[in-house]
Amino acid sequence: MEPVASGIWKLRLGTPERVTPVSLKEKEILNDRLEKLPPAHSPPICEGEIQFKVTRRGCVIELPLDEEEQIFGFGLQFYSFNQRGLKKQIRVNSDPVADTGDTHAPVPFYISTRGYGVLVDTARYVTFYCGSHTRSRLKPDAIERPTMIIEVPHVQGVDLYFFSGPTMLNAVQRYVLFSGGGCMPPFWGLGVWYRTYALADYNVAYKHASYFRSAHIPCDVFGFEPGWHSHCYSCSYQWDLKKFPNPDQMIRDLNKLSYKVNLWEHVFVHPTAPFWQEIRIFSGNYEVWGGLVPDFTTEAQKIFADYHEKNFLLKGVLGFKLDECDNSDYRPQPWSFPEVTEFPSGIDGEQMHSLLGILYQRTIWSIFLKHNKRTFCQARSSHAIAAPLPFVLYSDLYNHRDYIRALVNSGFSGLLWSPEVRHADSAEDLVRRIQTAVFSPLTLINAFQMKNPPWLQYDIEKNNEDILLENYKELEHTVRRLFELRMSLIPYLYSAFARYYFEGIPPVRALPLEYSDDSETYRIDDEYLLGDSLLIAPLFAGQQSRKVYLPKNTTWYCFWTYRRYEGGRTYEFKADLERIPIFVLEGSLLPLAKPLEFIERNTCFEINAYVFGEKPTKFILFEDDGETYNFEKGLYNLVKLIWDPEKGGEVIREGSYPETKYKIIEWKQVKSP
Amino acid sequence: MEPVASGIWKLRLGTPERVTPVSLKEKEILNDRLEKLPPAHSPPICEGEIQFKVTRRGCVIELPLDEEEQIFGFGLQFYSFNQRGLKKQIRVNSDPVADTGDTHAPVPFYISTRGYGVLVDTARYVTFYCGSHTRSRLKPDAIERPTMIIEVPHVQGVDLYFFSGPTMLNAVQRYVLFSGGGCMPPFWGLGVWYRTYALADYNVAYKHASYFRSAHIPCDVFGFEPGWHSHCYSCSYQWDLKKFPNPDQMIRDLNKLSYKVNLWEHVFVHPTAPFWQEIRIFSGNYEVWGGLVPDFTTEAQKIFADYHEKNFLLKGVLGFKLDECDNSDYRPQPWSFPEVTEFPSGIDGEQMHSLLGILYQRTIWSIFLKHNKRTFCQARSSHAIAAPLPFVLYSDLYNHRDYIRALVNSGFSGLLWSPEVRHADSAEDLVRRIQTAVFSPLTLINAFQMKNPPWLQYDIEKNNEDILLENYKELEHTVRRLFELRMSLIPYLYSAFARYYFEGIPPVRALPLEYSDDSETYRIDDEYLLGDSLLIAPLFAGQQSRKVYLPKNTTWYCFWTYRRYEGGRTYEFKADLERIPIFVLEGSLLPLAKPLEFIERNTCFEINAYVFGEKPTKFILFEDDGETYNFEKGLYNLVKLIWDPEKGGEVIREGSYPETKYKIIEWKQVKSP
Repeated sequence: MEPVASGIWKLRLGTPERVTPVSLKEKEILNDRLEKLPPAHSPPICEGEIQFKVTRRGCVIELPLDEEEQIFGFGLQFYSFNQRGLKKQIRVNSDPVADTGDTHAPVPFYISTRGYGVLVDTARYVTFYCGSHTRSRLKPDAIERPTMIIEVPHVQGVDLYFFSGPTMLNAVQRYVLFSGGGCMPPFWGLGVWYRTYALADYNVAYKHASYFRSAHIPCDVFGFEPGWHSHCYSCSYQWDLKKFPNPDQMIRDLNKLSYKVNLWEHVFVHPTAPFWQEIRIFSGNYEVWGGLVPDFTTEAQKIFADYHEKNFLLKGVLGFKLDECDNSDYRPQPWSFPEVTEFPSGIDGEQMHSLLGILYQRTIWSIFLKHNKRTFCQARSSHAIAAPLPFVLYSDLYNHRDYIRALVNSGFSGLLWSPEVRHADSAEDLVRRIQTAVFSPLTLINAFQMKNPPWLQYDIEKNNEDILLENYKELEHTVRRLFELRMSLIPYLYSAFARYYFEGIPPVRALPLEYSDDSETYRIDDEYLLGDSLLIAPLFAGQQSRKVYLPKNTTWYCFWTYRRYEGGRTYEFKADLERIPIFVLEGSLLPLAKPLEFIERNTCFEINAYVFGEKPTKFILFEDDGETYNFEKGLYNLVKLIWDPEKGGEVIREGSYPETKYKIIEWKQVKSP
Repeated sequence: MEPVASGIWKLRLGTPERVTPVSLKEKEILNDRLEKLPPAHSPPICEGEIQFKVTRRGCVIELPLDEEEQIFGFGLQFYSFNQRGLKKQIRVNSDPVADTGDTHAPVPFYISTRGYGVLVDTARYVTFYCGSHTRSRLKPDAIERPTMIIEVPHVQGVDLYFFSGPTMLNAVQRYVLFSGGGCMPPFWGLGVWYRTYALADYNVAYKHASYFRSAHIPCDVFGFEPGWHSHCYSCSYQWDLKKFPNPDQMIRDLNKLSYKVNLWEHVFVHPTAPFWQEIRIFSGNYEVWGGLVPDFTTEAQKIFADYHEKNFLLKGVLGFKLDECDNSDYRPQPWSFPEVTEFPSGIDGEQMHSLLGILYQRTIWSIFLKHNKRTFCQARSSHAIAAPLPFVLYSDLYNHRDYIRALVNSGFSGLLWSPEVRHADSAEDLVRRIQTAVFSPLTLINAFQMKNPPWLQYDIEKNNEDILLENYKELEHTVRRLFELRMSLIPYLYSAFARYYFEGIPPVRALPLEYSDDSETYRIDDEYLLGDSLLIAPLFAGQQSRKVYLPKNTTWYCFWTYRRYEGGRTYEFKADLERIPIFVLEGSLLPLAKPLEFIERNTCFEINAYVFGEKPTKFILFEDDGETYNFEKGLYNLVKLIWDPEKGGEVIREGSYPETKYKIIEWKQVKSP
């Protein structure tokens, strides 16, 4: 075991492959931040307890498991939470149909309730048997204990990384800080996103953009779906000039309405793309939808990035949606490249499927880094060591219950997930989905199938016939208020992201991450913590009521009524269309801003500070320009909100950033009814 | 390319593994039979057109595909028929949830409408990309043609076997004859099977057995489900003496009622099994449900076989149901051994999953061979080179539509499949399922969940509360008539199996196998040929009518009305609960026997010979003792039915078998209305 950073050890077993997630890591380990975590003097598992063997299939590692030990993680898992007893294959796939481990963002990293994490540094489809099997007995009455069996196919060896605790959260923090820290979105990234009708032309798009402003519905990001390309599936990366005769002017028009423009694309380069000829020799030997698959570990990265910089970033585009960088095994017609594909760098199709998401994200991110602009983008695939990448995952799956579980799971692996809203089965379904989106890392309405926003008509067919709901004004009002709630949370969320960046604490966390001493939390896959103070319990359509478990030794206040609830108990709440159960931890100072319709360069948030309990700990607002990487050079403030029951509220601003982004308007001490 | 038999070539690529399906083949190639097929002077694919490469993942083969070429096969596929354009992974799995290739009986063998078959001789989870991908273009306007890409993981090489046509059926025949010929069941195996309630004790079982006799419902095989074991999941292979105080006497009692007894078991050996200690060192290093997994390529085969011979065969048991010899990847709790398992012979878990079905079948078959007794058994898993094994596949899946598709697909790969009937959603559903079972290789009612036969009450819960259907007498009557129809088909089916044995022609065949010149048949996955003369078009619950396509250049008669239909057209038939659409090929002589309630040693079938058309070709009944392998030494007759429009019917009996099993009672010339 070789120590690689504070509380992190590497164990090299056999001869690992050259290309692995850690080998592609670009950001430095945040050692100064790691050293602030509780010290760990020895690895969480002794080397002597680890078995390793090279087989004809690859290599096998066996790690001990305690009888009571529970396992979480493996990336964006949709169908299960606690992984103990299960088999998981870490395979990139956009359409998982069962709880096999397939997901578009699988991560060969797990954490244990014993307070440690293990990363298997491989781009192979590794399989984890999480205590599901026992060795054969030597005698009839012998008792064998299940182990963690890890099989890495096709390799002669692998590096394991062990992340110490003492708590599960500490192990995740170490993993994120090892990766380079969590990503820091621009302010606008935390606003509301709208992706417009895929068949829209300039007029339709501009009509949609104008609608939000005239209806006073908050919206920051305006996204174009595949139809903007002159050729799509695969991509030409050029505007369809029949629909958009003057794209540069349109972007300026949208900017004038204070929108940030985001463009859909995928990575498969059609022969009509201007850089097809140039990128061809840096691409794989099989096509997808008639398009090349660039190998972004080669010169292809620069070709692709340069084109995007010149044609999009410099024209005012502030982000992209990277679709279909995952894989497809459950569709009748497999649409992605086969695992046997050979890439110029020597990577094969399996490795590329695992890595394409992060390689593509890095390619796009590089042009924003170059211009010292923060971006916040979408990507449909990710993998290990991805926390620093300013990309939020989304999916073509659409089961709301599974979306909630994915959200709960995402934080275990340093991933961000957006439960995007498309269509709905009912007004209730639409509102429930939007509520989940509002309390997630990215609030996105993806109306690519609809001529009108879904709250005017959630049914796709009727929507496209312009048959609006009779009560659409009512639904529009509900949605407006939800988006306003989102906008009021931005300073709070932004500060949560700062903790992700500096301390490795994910903004969305499952309960066991904070309350691992409370084994009741190990089965709670429908509640999560958002930031420091909020516990969110989403509802989905059809639920008449829901149970909410509050962790032991904690006290909470209802976000809506301020009623006080003791932890260690399960409460049942009747469903209310307007409100999902949300709780504020006693001892919190919760900053809520006056909602804006959009973020601008000179936005200053007017904040009410809500005081929950007698002796709240301070809350630190992170203050910077909200759009560049200058904060990495120290150009930021920590705005400390402090409450004294006798003296009242106090604001202490520390740092060198010259502007004021937060103005505290009022302090409100919450009274439980 | 090395010729290995008439029309069969082997191509060795790289260095294949030691243990493969062909390496385990026990039966000789039936060369004398192969030589009767149309000669083929050169391999169907030129060696120069084949690409081969060893990669880090295993090896990759690319074979050319014609633009029009269609692909069928890959074993017991449930979710697709024509495989062109699809990706299939040949992985053993009991619970496939999507069309990925997973099935409990996958076979790395496909046939092409160009009239050839390809076997990839491997126990690995091989992947076939059936023309789903194309190579990257070198120039924007270049056209690349999709190929058949085959990836065999973890190996340095593989043997391919090419089976010539000229027709698809010839290619399948060559594959079956290469395997050793199709299996030949005993007469009784083609009767009706009933598996009794899993919780039955002696009294319940005997009551069920008596019921069939007193209700005059045909039944030949009486099966016991897991509850007969003193320990189950895993198995003790000993009777539960509390429920069955005198099993030897019970078997004699059932034999007296003319039943053949069949016992359920699986392969996982519980410590209470008398041979646990002995078989332990010949077992894998992981347990399943606390039981050992024997390696039947070692001494374990003899230990297991000897125990079964002494304790079951010699006590009168005539068959087994081999459950759970497949694998489980889609259940939350994976119940089978991991792929990393090591077996004493050096086989790993992946290879064992592929081979366990056939190894287990061979182990059980060996004891019957030793005693010169034919058996007909059930098994839940199979693989390549399995045609000679007297085992019929079944499944825990239960979608009737998928069952029909599996039946249609089974013949492409030399497999037999039983669409067993358990419970039902309605009387219609029950009847439809039984109709499919009646026209399949094995007619099985598996009532393991039910205290009463399902036609008395198809709902499991009510059945177990003894709440019978009001009209159960009516349903019972319908079922009785269906089983009688099955019994009347036995001579016809038995002769079809003789063609399977001697000529390699599967008794159940998809339309493209016989009519590959008619491309309309390439999409027909819900009709099949049963024996020489019958085309079956099953119905499933809810269908008000169904379309039936009849192949070009053929003429058919409705089995029920004798109405004449010209081929090359699609007809629509209204659903009739009593009858599914069945057609008899013009030019057929169809022997139908007077239905019996069961088969006995001295059974002689009284047959009516139905003449369809003016100049029918002869029909050959296969006649032997119906229960031993003496026919392999020539002790059989060919009973030729010949019709002359002027002289009428004639029977010519050729051969040395001394007894008469068939008596032709009447010749009936069918008149189209």
